[in-house]
Amino acid sequence: MPEDSQTISETVHAVAEGQLSSRQWVQACLDRIRDNEDIGSWSYVDEARSLERADHMDWLRKDGSALGPLHGCPIGLKDIIEVRGMPHGCGSPLMGQVSESNAVLVDALEAAGAVIMGKTETAEFAFLNPARTKNPHSPKYSPGGSSAGSAAAVASGDVPVAIGSQTNGSVIRPASYCGIYAMKPSAGIIPRIGVFEQSPTLDQIGLFATNLEDLGLVADALSVHDSRDPHSIATPRPFCLAGVQAEPPIEPNFAIMSLPYGQLQSRASKGGFSEVADALQGRVEILEAPPTFNQLIEVQRTIHLSEIFQAFDAMGLRGNSQLSAVLSKTLAEGESISSSQYEEALMARESLAAFFDNFFEDFDAILSPSSAGEAPLLSEGHTGSPIFCTIWTLAGLPALNLPVMQGEHGLPIGLQMIGRRRDDARLLRTARWFMTTLFDEGERQCFQNR
Amino acid sequence: MPEDSQTISETVHAVAEGQLSSRQWVQACLDRIRDNEDIGSWSYVDEARSLERADHMDWLRKDGSALGPLHGCPIGLKDIIEVRGMPHGCGSPLMGQVSESNAVLVDALEAAGAVIMGKTETAEFAFLNPARTKNPHSPKYSPGGSSAGSAAAVASGDVPVAIGSQTNGSVIRPASYCGIYAMKPSAGIIPRIGVFEQSPTLDQIGLFATNLEDLGLVADALSVHDSRDPHSIATPRPFCLAGVQAEPPIEPNFAIMSLPYGQLQSRASKGGFSEVADALQGRVEILEAPPTFNQLIEVQRTIHLSEIFQAFDAMGLRGNSQLSAVLSKTLAEGESISSSQYEEALMARESLAAFFDNFFEDFDAILSPSSAGEAPLLSEGHTGSPIFCTIWTLAGLPALNLPVMQGEHGLPIGLQMIGRRRDDARLLRTARWFMTTLFDEGERQCFQNR
Repeated sequence: MPEDSQTISETVHAVAEGQLSSRQWVQACLDRIRDNEDIGSWSYVDEARSLERADHMDWLRKDGSALGPLHGCPIGLKDIIEVRGMPHGCGSPLMGQVSESNAVLVDALEAAGAVIMGKTETAEFAFLNPARTKNPHSPKYSPGGSSAGSAAAVASGDVPVAIGSQTNGSVIRPASYCGIYAMKPSAGIIPRIGVFEQSPTLDQIGLFATNLEDLGLVADALSVHDSRDPHSIATPRPFCLAGVQAEPPIEPNFAIMSLPYGQLQSRASKGGFSEVADALQGRVEILEAPPTFNQLIEVQRTIHLSEIFQAFDAMGLRGNSQLSAVLSKTLAEGESISSSQYEEALMARESLAAFFDNFFEDFDAILSPSSAGEAPLLSEGHTGSPIFCTIWTLAGLPALNLPVMQGEHGLPIGLQMIGRRRDDARLLRTARWFMTTLFDEGERQCFQNR
Repeated sequence: MPEDSQTISETVHAVAEGQLSSRQWVQACLDRIRDNEDIGSWSYVDEARSLERADHMDWLRKDGSALGPLHGCPIGLKDIIEVRGMPHGCGSPLMGQVSESNAVLVDALEAAGAVIMGKTETAEFAFLNPARTKNPHSPKYSPGGSSAGSAAAVASGDVPVAIGSQTNGSVIRPASYCGIYAMKPSAGIIPRIGVFEQSPTLDQIGLFATNLEDLGLVADALSVHDSRDPHSIATPRPFCLAGVQAEPPIEPNFAIMSLPYGQLQSRASKGGFSEVADALQGRVEILEAPPTFNQLIEVQRTIHLSEIFQAFDAMGLRGNSQLSAVLSKTLAEGESISSSQYEEALMARESLAAFFDNFFEDFDAILSPSSAGEAPLLSEGHTGSPIFCTIWTLAGLPALNLPVMQGEHGLPIGLQMIGRRRDDARLLRTARWFMTTLFDEGERQCFQNR
């Protein structure tokens, strides 16, 4: 059974060498999933299929066939990602039919040798109504949302990696609350065909892992082009794993932007954040965000609500009594957005993307909190605010959660690092420099392994 | 402008270093295409789109974005492969509508940085009725079929690589006649979604190039999984480029099988073939094919004709007056095949696959002629016999054409090398050993570059 601190590449190497079988790896994960049942990370686990697939991966090894970068590696998928033969739950009683086809990203993972273990819990339709999942560090707290189960499954060691999605802050926020590493690659790197569509303009795929190298490894496996997805880029992909492994040619430069919602940041987060800024000394500049940034939260909201209304209208689910109150209310708000408001918001988003293309001429990365602070209590009935992710997601920038801070209740808080669009490899290179320069080996472990 | 003897990797490296722009590369190919217009290799060339794409690849380089293994590399596609915005000709007056989406393999090539130049001529619906294409080595002769244009375009230096398809012998045979390298990877390595379907059981994708390394490089770029294609394998792919570059751990073993149709082989081909066998000395064994092999040509025919009838029936084209005589006759024959004959043939194919899985325990590769001999005259009105490819294609084995022999009229004849299914990397490793051990550098050049 692999150590929690082992990277996926190390374990895959052990599988390739015959020191560990994929079956043992998968069985160990199935045991962990059962032990952690109370956390409620999974909506569906297919034991038989997972073991059969593991055996097949082991057979390929014995047969001398090609091995993949994720050979025999167990993976969890947010339950808005279709897998042939598995129920497509989407966190709603309205769904749950068995999928007839795979999402494109599932094919990509399987071609790399991964073992799809099952589906992880999601907030209702990847929006705001919480999943049943608890925070693995303290069961009274929320794991965040909407990719609650994926974050909790990785944080509790069920699987070394899980896939989520982010329309606003649904990857970076739960990673922050759960104390693990996460990456939301640039928009267009991972195709969304076969993933529940909430907002075609804003939906993006992300992933959770226990270290930066695993993020790079799995991001590369996911990085395929599908021209059916209008965002998917028809050009070469950044090589993320090489990014994690590279040394920056010169020490990187960071920016911290004073943002209109900065006052929402908790005291502990503020404290941790200034410690980091101090440690970076001359390598960080604090900038006032341009005044147009004040409208960006509203711009995101206009696009998001308008598109989520259109999506549910197209599915014929508008006004359905089995939708949560928060979603129903949102759909009503979305309906009231005029097409000119919507078009104007899309244009504002375009200029934001252009602004950032210039911005990253001068800086390697932006530093931001990943969330306002620690996870909210489950009893508060929400998944926490995504606002610290909104602008970067709106611009389609690649973002990482780095689990380096701690809050008033001893719960993790993440630091967010944001890079230039489609320059995901540089972001990972910068993050690795940042982590090895500022933190010792123990501090770089994700929260639960310290 | 790259030298004809340069590999794609070498030219891509020059593009990456700024010594050559993709625009120059593409423009040089467009010029060659115009110079070679008489050969009739292309059914559609999109100059504007090609140059625009080349400029985009050059811009990505200047911008410091990720570069791909085929960055800026011009590629031709057999006109049965859909490309959004290009007419889908299929070598028939019945087709020609502009495609609305890309074949999956097109997306894969573009994600690697390739520039799709246009479509190459194909025999009618990739079957037997010849394309207008001439053999680049002598215009009285056929280039073979059905991937006539792809083979001729590479043989005449229009593009360094082109994609074709093979249901029986439509890649290996034209490569043999045109004196270039070609590879038909194992069934299931390259997905067929978006490629005209003639026979779901037998259709396979292949590629043409001027050297083994380019075959490996491009095969890797094409090697993606798409679960919508029932043949597509959900497991890690062989790493073909690494195969070409590797040394075999021990000298490989070859088999030559005496096959029921051996008497069709031309005198020149027989002569060249025995020279090769002699040169391999103790490393080759000559085996009688098992008696069941006698029926295999008929088994292939039963599956092929039955499925081609079903395909045209489903398209509503059965009995259409614009189909060629040879195709109409074939459809009528296909209609007369009973479902029990068809099922029996599918079962025979399954046992063949099992036979070969065992066979390659003892041998690295099988040697076979690629075609009976030189190309037929155009005036004969056919594209030559595919029979020397039939059994290997039926079994889904990976096959290469090596342009090492010459016929009575000075035209090229290929040697075919066949490997274990899904062990394409080993086949390329073996082929590279074979070429460097038996032939000098000049002899290894493809026919037109000697």
